[in-house]
Amino acid sequence: MNLKRVGNQSVVFANPPVILSSYSVVGPKEGQGPLGKTFDKVWKDGLHGEKSWEVAESKMLQEAMQGAIEQASIPKDQIDFMLAGDLLNQITSSNFAARQMALPFIGMYGACSTMALSIAVGSMLIDGGFARNILVGVSSHHDTAERQYRLPTEQGAQRAMSAQWTVTGAGSVLLSGSGEGPRITSATIGRVIDYAVKDVSNMGAAMAPAVADTILNHFQDMKRKPIDYQLIASGDLGAIGLALACEVLKQSGMDMGTNFTDCGVMIYDDSQDSHAGASGCGCSSVVFAGNIMQRIKAGDLKQVMLVGSGALHSPTTALQGESIPGIGHAVVIES
Amino acid sequence: MNLKRVGNQSVVFANPPVILSSYSVVGPKEGQGPLGKTFDKVWKDGLHGEKSWEVAESKMLQEAMQGAIEQASIPKDQIDFMLAGDLLNQITSSNFAARQMALPFIGMYGACSTMALSIAVGSMLIDGGFARNILVGVSSHHDTAERQYRLPTEQGAQRAMSAQWTVTGAGSVLLSGSGEGPRITSATIGRVIDYAVKDVSNMGAAMAPAVADTILNHFQDMKRKPIDYQLIASGDLGAIGLALACEVLKQSGMDMGTNFTDCGVMIYDDSQDSHAGASGCGCSSVVFAGNIMQRIKAGDLKQVMLVGSGALHSPTTALQGESIPGIGHAVVIES
Repeated sequence: MNLKRVGNQSVVFANPPVILSSYSVVGPKEGQGPLGKTFDKVWKDGLHGEKSWEVAESKMLQEAMQGAIEQASIPKDQIDFMLAGDLLNQITSSNFAARQMALPFIGMYGACSTMALSIAVGSMLIDGGFARNILVGVSSHHDTAERQYRLPTEQGAQRAMSAQWTVTGAGSVLLSGSGEGPRITSATIGRVIDYAVKDVSNMGAAMAPAVADTILNHFQDMKRKPIDYQLIASGDLGAIGLALACEVLKQSGMDMGTNFTDCGVMIYDDSQDSHAGASGCGCSSVVFAGNIMQRIKAGDLKQVMLVGSGALHSPTTALQGESIPGIGHAVVIES
Repeated sequence: MNLKRVGNQSVVFANPPVILSSYSVVGPKEGQGPLGKTFDKVWKDGLHGEKSWEVAESKMLQEAMQGAIEQASIPKDQIDFMLAGDLLNQITSSNFAARQMALPFIGMYGACSTMALSIAVGSMLIDGGFARNILVGVSSHHDTAERQYRLPTEQGAQRAMSAQWTVTGAGSVLLSGSGEGPRITSATIGRVIDYAVKDVSNMGAAMAPAVADTILNHFQDMKRKPIDYQLIASGDLGAIGLALACEVLKQSGMDMGTNFTDCGVMIYDDSQDSHAGASGCGCSSVVFAGNIMQRIKAGDLKQVMLVGSGALHSPTTALQGESIPGIGHAVVIES
């Protein structure tokens, strides 16, 4: 019993699940960014002919999941669960996507950490013997998130320089108990950490301590060091959050070296006016399903840690004066 | 491989996880109802001295989880994960509770089906060897839900007779890979089913087809019949939804007999002006953690199926003209 449990927060898989396929769909801004060519599909606009951005986001998530299924050539009746989540209240993008996919559906909420969280839980369900194949899908959309979390999107209000731009994107991976491909070898489930950040225009600062906590616990649990991974990518800390996470880690005695970066730093360049970088659970899901998976498949990366970072931000509780708790979940992919 | 997978949507546990303890905390209306004496704690009012209903709901969830931990006498450092969810946007009640519990946290969203969903996933993580003990907690609060989903709570707007009253309550169970108690023997993960119900005052109708679908799949997967369980309790269909679910099941050739009822029908009586019954994910969580667990422990019930029912209702998409998809997740408890 519990041979798969390591340390305080980590699990190690007995038969590491395989990532059979990955697929990413993004909006125009992401397509124009430095990773543009690494995405499977780039939409010309965020509405994509739908009547609302919310419908478009759910369609984007469906496209990503359908793409992952087709790339893996797995018959749909051999996919035992769908795990999905997004940023919208009641995770509506995922719910409507699940209606179309008609698969047994487990709804996840980890804010922007949802991709890593869902891969972690999906891997446990496969390695535990409860599923042959699991479809994971995670999305966010700038125009649906903006009006839900901040101000009417059309208002185009000026943003603080510490703010991040929510990615319009959906990423999907198909996890399997058999087959060939990169494998999920371990995962570290994070705790909620709150450094009392109340600035709703600085999610990076709210998330950084939680990401640092998960990274520290991962290395302690696994008896590993940052140099054991060629890439450690946090979800969407952005430039400010990444610097803060490095600072917290340094104060805890951990030098992250040069392999630590952030999906929210990678996806846009300075000319794209995103301010502190990117956010949204679509960010790490498309950077992982696109760029990172391509580099793993090409043999450029052999050991990778993805640390999904979630700001558990609620407009309601923020207006009530509460701080913004953060969480980070890590998965290790090895080929 | 996959011996634990049965049929299309079900899993059977190799070493069925034990429910070591359960704890329920409710508001005054629930305390005055027919199940009042079966709850561990009844608050005198829904605010409980806090500055907002949202803070109170999260505190209620913490009380329930703390109660379950104390009843089980398990040291907190032996609890490997906390699985929780609630009805609030961004599951804030759970996030803030997780901050206080400081346990590795997996956020779940299944609308009102979250208790059954979390018990199912938690059981898979334990039986898969990834955790020794898992704390599950689920809450809802009438006054936080009312203003988020409908109208300002203080407005006290007239409700349709088909509407259900959101339960103020938090239920928690401590699942374990060892010890004595009732066991989770199987689970059926539901698909999203949508019969195009658009009436936001009739969640029972929106959920009924999904509950029926999960029940049908459960019996087909498990090769069992309704008479194999002394109690089949859906989450919160209410009177209208329960009648509709029976009708759908009957049309599919399944006679549910007399053991099929609904937590949303059980928790209030006719004098309490709840209209079609109760709803909210607190409903099935407190009825299960209170009344049902007591009857199991007393030996009155030996085989029970809890079918969490979730209306995946979003005020945003409802205003955009979308229908309300439903989902149902089932867990079987045997002693």
